[in-house]
Amino acid sequence: MYKLILVRHGQSEWNLSNQFTGWTDVDLTPQGVEEARQAGRIIKESGIDVRYTYTSFLKRAIKTLDLILEEMDRMWLPVEKSWRLNEKHYGMLQGQNKQQAVEIYGKEQVMLWRRSYDVAPEPLPDDDPRHPKYDIRYQGIKNRSARPSTESLSDATRRIIPLWNASIVENLHQYGQVLIVAHGNSIRGIIKFMKNLSNEEIVKLNIPTGLPYVMELDEDMQIIKDEYIGISEEDLKAKEAVVANQTK
Amino acid sequence: MYKLILVRHGQSEWNLSNQFTGWTDVDLTPQGVEEARQAGRIIKESGIDVRYTYTSFLKRAIKTLDLILEEMDRMWLPVEKSWRLNEKHYGMLQGQNKQQAVEIYGKEQVMLWRRSYDVAPEPLPDDDPRHPKYDIRYQGIKNRSARPSTESLSDATRRIIPLWNASIVENLHQYGQVLIVAHGNSIRGIIKFMKNLSNEEIVKLNIPTGLPYVMELDEDMQIIKDEYIGISEEDLKAKEAVVANQTK
Repeated sequence: MYKLILVRHGQSEWNLSNQFTGWTDVDLTPQGVEEARQAGRIIKESGIDVRYTYTSFLKRAIKTLDLILEEMDRMWLPVEKSWRLNEKHYGMLQGQNKQQAVEIYGKEQVMLWRRSYDVAPEPLPDDDPRHPKYDIRYQGIKNRSARPSTESLSDATRRIIPLWNASIVENLHQYGQVLIVAHGNSIRGIIKFMKNLSNEEIVKLNIPTGLPYVMELDEDMQIIKDEYIGISEEDLKAKEAVVANQTK
Repeated sequence: MYKLILVRHGQSEWNLSNQFTGWTDVDLTPQGVEEARQAGRIIKESGIDVRYTYTSFLKRAIKTLDLILEEMDRMWLPVEKSWRLNEKHYGMLQGQNKQQAVEIYGKEQVMLWRRSYDVAPEPLPDDDPRHPKYDIRYQGIKNRSARPSTESLSDATRRIIPLWNASIVENLHQYGQVLIVAHGNSIRGIIKFMKNLSNEEIVKLNIPTGLPYVMELDEDMQIIKDEYIGISEEDLKAKEAVVANQTK
């Protein structure tokens, strides 16, 4: 039996200021640091013998993983960083306050951008300095779709799958227990294809920050059991509601 | 032309308390954290375009690297961790105060353990709980010599070479600029075989904590130029003297 733990990074500066972040490389808040440490303590107490880890190219996820590993006293574990685990790219919305976006574009449009499966926000123009093609960390990637100017959840899910097939499954087989620290929408992408959820189901799923979500898997990577650990059902519901209500 | 940057981790708790550390996994002190950040700022200001990094299995080095990458705004760089970059294993001396060791064993014997090339301290007994064979991080390593009960500088140098040949040279060719954050004696080992120093020369070399040492290399990995950066000659001499005088 294999175990895959998914953790969304702790609260970031733009989670706090309620701005669309996407590929913008913002830092954790002090609360986010504490959430990360708490996640590390929960995983340590669970006794799950994590042997391999993944994270994105964005510091809020990388730092969350570093803090988790420090609390677990496993800083020596391998860490594989991949742009494929980045948050969904929010195009021109990046930097926009979510509440202001509702006032400008209307609630319905913003809900489509945030919660539809295949509608992407307006893309960044090619000459926008925020475009990933100007960011050194994405220079080494030849594949054009690796440097998106915007993404739908469908796009983000699609670019995770090669990493899953080429690396994560292999490391689950080799190491047994694998930890992934990523972002709301990259975690949604993983859950979508693992649980074979419909487009409607996945957009309703809200991933709270800093909570370890554990999947027990069989040889064929089919889910035997999946649950958040280290939190009561009541507290979990409250945290999911916070995520769902960001534009309300 | 290639560049290899070597950095010894910032001050650790046992650097401060003047104890032999070896493979003991002690943390950085607040000063060590500041040294690490300063090293990151120096490397950033140097403009060296680091693309790949290595560190050991020990948290004082891993954290130093994490802090350097944070200051450089390059947390997304690949980090390869290897037990081969660990500090020299100090056997039964691990945990012993260096000054007390002088009082117990005599100055000459301690200097031999600290500064001879091929004399190793007394080994840890097989049933000592500090023995690496009981440490989960070294379980995956089949090679017996990978779990030493003590090491001379010669032993430590020898176990670094396979990593050099199998990985570091290749990544220098691929990425051009590589950063290694390691330990006093693992850095000595690297410098010994790169500069082809004699056994007498290498033991006289004192590596201060948290100072970036830059080697410019040609196609054949021969040194064109090597120097500490971001520090005056005077300050460097003072720092080297501190390391040399730990048992005086």
